[in-house]
Amino acid sequence: MKRIALTAIAAAALLSGGMADAESPRGIMRGTGDLGIVIERAAGRVVVVETSTPSRLYTIDGLGDLSHASAVFSRDGRFAYVFGRDGGLSKLDLLRGEIAKRVVQAGNSIGGAISQDGRVVAVSNYEPGGVRLFDAADLEPLAEIAATAVDGKRSKVVGLVDAPDSKLAFALYDAGEIWTADITDPRAPRVSRHRDIGRLPYDGMITPDGRHYVAGLFGEDGAALLDLWRPEAGVRRILDGYGRGEEPLPVYKMPHLEGWASVGDLAFLPAVGRHEVLVVSMSDWREVARIPVHGQPVFVVARPDGRQVWVNFAHPRNDTVQVIDVPSRSIVATLKPGPAVLHLEFTPRGEQVWLSVRDADRIDVYDTRRLERSASIPADKPSGIFFTARAGRIGY
Amino acid sequence: MKRIALTAIAAAALLSGGMADAESPRGIMRGTGDLGIVIERAAGRVVVVETSTPSRLYTIDGLGDLSHASAVFSRDGRFAYVFGRDGGLSKLDLLRGEIAKRVVQAGNSIGGAISQDGRVVAVSNYEPGGVRLFDAADLEPLAEIAATAVDGKRSKVVGLVDAPDSKLAFALYDAGEIWTADITDPRAPRVSRHRDIGRLPYDGMITPDGRHYVAGLFGEDGAALLDLWRPEAGVRRILDGYGRGEEPLPVYKMPHLEGWASVGDLAFLPAVGRHEVLVVSMSDWREVARIPVHGQPVFVVARPDGRQVWVNFAHPRNDTVQVIDVPSRSIVATLKPGPAVLHLEFTPRGEQVWLSVRDADRIDVYDTRRLERSASIPADKPSGIFFTARAGRIGY
Repeated sequence: MKRIALTAIAAAALLSGGMADAESPRGIMRGTGDLGIVIERAAGRVVVVETSTPSRLYTIDGLGDLSHASAVFSRDGRFAYVFGRDGGLSKLDLLRGEIAKRVVQAGNSIGGAISQDGRVVAVSNYEPGGVRLFDAADLEPLAEIAATAVDGKRSKVVGLVDAPDSKLAFALYDAGEIWTADITDPRAPRVSRHRDIGRLPYDGMITPDGRHYVAGLFGEDGAALLDLWRPEAGVRRILDGYGRGEEPLPVYKMPHLEGWASVGDLAFLPAVGRHEVLVVSMSDWREVARIPVHGQPVFVVARPDGRQVWVNFAHPRNDTVQVIDVPSRSIVATLKPGPAVLHLEFTPRGEQVWLSVRDADRIDVYDTRRLERSASIPADKPSGIFFTARAGRIGY
Repeated sequence: MKRIALTAIAAAALLSGGMADAESPRGIMRGTGDLGIVIERAAGRVVVVETSTPSRLYTIDGLGDLSHASAVFSRDGRFAYVFGRDGGLSKLDLLRGEIAKRVVQAGNSIGGAISQDGRVVAVSNYEPGGVRLFDAADLEPLAEIAATAVDGKRSKVVGLVDAPDSKLAFALYDAGEIWTADITDPRAPRVSRHRDIGRLPYDGMITPDGRHYVAGLFGEDGAALLDLWRPEAGVRRILDGYGRGEEPLPVYKMPHLEGWASVGDLAFLPAVGRHEVLVVSMSDWREVARIPVHGQPVFVVARPDGRQVWVNFAHPRNDTVQVIDVPSRSIVATLKPGPAVLHLEFTPRGEQVWLSVRDADRIDVYDTRRLERSASIPADKPSGIFFTARAGRIGY
């Protein structure tokens, strides 16, 4: 029965995206360190991939609305937790190639995180607002953090990330607050609130060391910074010009803050509404340079060694990817992978980068040294790409 | 037949170290992201462990002389490559719990590395000197880098590490040189030599970003630094006082340079022959502070988020571990795990640290937030601890 279903999926994939590969057998004993998933948004499906060959293994279907879907991984790398826009939380068994458990936990959600110890999966919700905590093993609910603003209304929650010492950090869009939650006891999270951080925080990121949480503000220029090593110092405003420009262009897409690249003491981040990447010193959070680029940047991602930063762009310039050489802060390559490059993900040691070329129904794999395409993998309108190495990293 | 052999090993382990756990079944489908190995040096054996529970799974025997043994991992996390002092190179299948392949590749070796793409395992040798390259799949030899000094003699090779862009870096002990090798074509490595870097480099390390290679000098004070982003600038001398002290103590054990901790722009490193940890700025490679500690430090290791640095010590003070709080640069805990704490390894997100307490035949697992022991695992005279997360990191 399952075999038939899989064959049907494979056939459908073949028709829709020209995918010629036969599916790999499921349920095989193998390492999980080189696995990943690619979101096929329109089909409500993911492709399980491996980066050693590289190749696609099989698909897992039935995941609902995967617009803006993201994923985190169990600490053993076997399971992916996929957060769907429709409130669906799906635990995927990457080895068996099937859904291990799926719950629809809210009406509208926007991402999630996994706790430092891997025991708790947290989901941030728009409708109803708040954060819900689930047991990573069976997705049973553990607790809810209501994220109630001063006026008693629930707030949409954005920018949810894990932090060291069993913490979560997130921002309340409607309330203009940043909260941290200590989930050492996940049935009784202890919340710390930071009020009046600025209007309408729309996303958040945490630095790779898990120390600094930054929320971008939609309602005003600038960003809000919380030093988790010194929470008693409170939230301070940084990057006062962020989001502003002398001649602002129409903003096609708010850049993801998770798209910030951190290289040593510098952060590379997408300018809002401008064809620029900003370079900011993380010691004083001041802008130190602007690098002109091809379009409005969406994701600005550092190669794991920090030698290069790769940038993709908003519509209508999203057929292009540029590579910034970090020491010289100059563009060393302008690549044209194809129409609608939506996302990019590096292998853990950075020798490859995978790009979703949505409108070509293709994932392109680039050799980051030669700056040339080394492989192409068919996929049906691919969007997000997530590798299991995220399991071992803070803030993923 | 295999079953009997395993049972015998388990029984022997039980007798020798008081290990009460039954062995877990081998050959089970599971994720590999939470696996690791612990070296049981005296027994020529490793214990396969997992950090989620945490627990020991089973042992793999027959690995020869494991003095100073180290290990790297395949990029899928399934296989460990163990480098023995006797020149043995063993590929262990962590899922099947058995040796997949073993070769004795030299008379006396001192460590190894795996290439960025995971395809090549490199071993650095004392006797005969040089570096040998092997196919990671089957351990077939690919090439040899003879490491011949100007006088035509072969040099012992130390401090071998992988580096981005398909490179290796290592130091020639006898010749006083640092070499890099581009192993894009592993059958024809292309070597770059840096001469006259100082007398008797005894070990080397690479910064976590893979940019700076540092070799410690045994024959004189100081260290040698190569910036791999600017190799044409050559090697320069740093830390002129390193290894020197106004009132030097007898050096019980040369500290491992792999024991340097990198936290943001700072490196924390063991003073040689002194009861101090040095703090060095990595922007100008100058010493900025000294932290008095309990004994002569051996390993100085940062928690992955950089908030803490853990230190163990040389004989006779090796029953103690101290924890440095990075922001205040002060000791926040002095722990006494037991006699002969030889090594320590953090889980990838840093919530646990594992300590080998050799003379208590025990691995202790500490909760890094509470600074308390959370678990103990029996092991027979444990030394090195290596987790599969190293597969995704540069320089491991």
